[in-house]
Amino acid sequence: MAEPNTEANDTTRIASDSEGMALALAWAEKGMYLTAPNPRVGCVIVRDGVVIGAGHTQPAGQAHAEVQALRDAAARGADVRGATAYVTLEPCSHHGRTPPCADALVQAGLGRVVAAMTDPNPLVAGRGLARLEAAGIAVSAGLLAEPARELNIGFFSRMQRGLPWVRLKAAASLDGATALADGESQWITGPEARADGHAWRARAQAILTGIGTVKADDPQLTVRGIDTPLPPRRVIVDSRLEIEPGARILQGAPCWIVAASADPGKAAALRAAGHELILLPNPHGKVDLPALMRELGRRDINEVHVEAGARLNASLLREGCVDELLVYLAPSLIGPGMGMFALPPLARLAEQRRLRFHDLARVGEDIRILARFAPAATAINPEE
Amino acid sequence: MAEPNTEANDTTRIASDSEGMALALAWAEKGMYLTAPNPRVGCVIVRDGVVIGAGHTQPAGQAHAEVQALRDAAARGADVRGATAYVTLEPCSHHGRTPPCADALVQAGLGRVVAAMTDPNPLVAGRGLARLEAAGIAVSAGLLAEPARELNIGFFSRMQRGLPWVRLKAAASLDGATALADGESQWITGPEARADGHAWRARAQAILTGIGTVKADDPQLTVRGIDTPLPPRRVIVDSRLEIEPGARILQGAPCWIVAASADPGKAAALRAAGHELILLPNPHGKVDLPALMRELGRRDINEVHVEAGARLNASLLREGCVDELLVYLAPSLIGPGMGMFALPPLARLAEQRRLRFHDLARVGEDIRILARFAPAATAINPEE
Repeated sequence: MAEPNTEANDTTRIASDSEGMALALAWAEKGMYLTAPNPRVGCVIVRDGVVIGAGHTQPAGQAHAEVQALRDAAARGADVRGATAYVTLEPCSHHGRTPPCADALVQAGLGRVVAAMTDPNPLVAGRGLARLEAAGIAVSAGLLAEPARELNIGFFSRMQRGLPWVRLKAAASLDGATALADGESQWITGPEARADGHAWRARAQAILTGIGTVKADDPQLTVRGIDTPLPPRRVIVDSRLEIEPGARILQGAPCWIVAASADPGKAAALRAAGHELILLPNPHGKVDLPALMRELGRRDINEVHVEAGARLNASLLREGCVDELLVYLAPSLIGPGMGMFALPPLARLAEQRRLRFHDLARVGEDIRILARFAPAATAINPEE
Repeated sequence: MAEPNTEANDTTRIASDSEGMALALAWAEKGMYLTAPNPRVGCVIVRDGVVIGAGHTQPAGQAHAEVQALRDAAARGADVRGATAYVTLEPCSHHGRTPPCADALVQAGLGRVVAAMTDPNPLVAGRGLARLEAAGIAVSAGLLAEPARELNIGFFSRMQRGLPWVRLKAAASLDGATALADGESQWITGPEARADGHAWRARAQAILTGIGTVKADDPQLTVRGIDTPLPPRRVIVDSRLEIEPGARILQGAPCWIVAASADPGKAAALRAAGHELILLPNPHGKVDLPALMRELGRRDINEVHVEAGARLNASLLREGCVDELLVYLAPSLIGPGMGMFALPPLARLAEQRRLRFHDLARVGEDIRILARFAPAATAINPEE
């Protein structure tokens, strides 16, 4: 199967349901940086093996993918009656900020709807397809479900758990060092890996860091090199509210600063500069990280991108707040230095934290590894 | 191109030179554990798109691949006159333990010879092909040269540098720990990675370890699970000759024990048990590792497989004796523990040892990384 051509025109032909869905997924990806907090969905309408309409979800409050595809077909003067729609997520059946997409498909007279997956929200799963079926439209679901799920892993996490999907990014040498012991850390990975890292930042709705990183590196943690109409919110874990007003991360767009306690004057100054202070203390005088993740979920954050130091990384791991590691390894050996995670020593090897490798790729001269925790295994010693 | 079928029979058809050479490479791989110190070579003879003969190099002193393929054709009653031979290395033109293969091909009346690469020995490179050409046979070289080179990377290293190709194997968690600080190290990687490690051991002619590993783990360092008529020689770096006669590595096949100094009684006892003692001191009272590599080259070792501890690993790296790292990473986090290489701290990050990733694969639940040093970059501080 060739790379799907999303520049659909009258000559784009689809030879199988898989090709139709692959094209719908490619359209969904066009919404990568646009649709939050809604999911990225693509829809392709095919008649007699020819694509007659395609679209993806627009920014929140605007049209969903199915309506976009129907509009595209109308603009082309194409007759969609009896045609097949490939859609990467079950069409919605409820009135939100837009009318139900299932109704739009029924009214347009589609003959068949193929969905990659049903709605992840158990309360409404299957309802959209049932509505289509009741109107005499042939429906099926499950084709290319896995890539469809990956595209919206954060949205589904929030729907199903009330929590964002938390991806922790780290970059190290092949022997696991992120920096020398004195902190020197520039240029471990190459330009391609750094650009790739910006794409992962861009798809998140929040970038999380800690006061240690702010003090040590004074980063901006903005997205560079990618057009993001919805730049991710910078979130700083700063238990004792130590951040200086001149920190680079505080210039530009407002941040959320998460503390366990706050000097009222400093808090007022930060608020006056447009930032929001979120107080989430735990009994140990630190930020309650699991509560922070719940709060980010309530604030419609689908994906959290963590770029922090070894200590906050380790705290997030220990408190079961990390779903996925995004690790770049450079082809170099550094020897003694800082590690990616300042974890405490294990008493026995059997206590090691197990993950599973989800994806492996070469990015420029570096390696990119995606490793995931099994959901049940992440909550290790949450009270520590 | 489908997976080449090395169970060649009269129905095996070849549609292109690339397919012919891919099949010859598959035949060469059948000699993986048989041909040392000779290279692994495969030959396939094709007439009118049909394979009429195939073979690979036999154990040293016996027939080379070309002669095997000619014999196979004869056994099938096939007429090789005018046929094409695909051979993974330029046919030899000199009388060694066997007559020149180039002559055999000329005498058999082959019409065309396609070689993956010319002989790596600059003194004879091109002579075999010239001999064929002089006899009116059409010749070409360079097709699938890269996999042909990889298959015999150690043989070529020895021919070109007088040194074996040294591959250092390590297994660690994703955060780079090989063991807890107390040494507990079992089962970091899974059974598939361990079996894969035995295949890498098997293709080497020497397995190198250090007295530290012998003392700590008492390993056998034999090949298990793979049929190896030429099991690799176990080589132990033991500067002060501390090895105990009861060490498991000393049971079974004879070892080479490399020391900087030796108690005469202990040396005599080890020799009486069948082992060889090699004295190679450097001015610091340690084993001269670069001299050891030269000695292994002189002893016809093509590939050295290092399985040692962090200290010997680091010494080999520092003295420029390592060509390639074979690193298995497990999907786990261990935190503080032993690293793969006990390198000294760097003063500046710019001093990091750079490699390039050569290959990346998933093996069971683990990741396998092959990373190579650029030849010029390996000899760092050879006098330290």
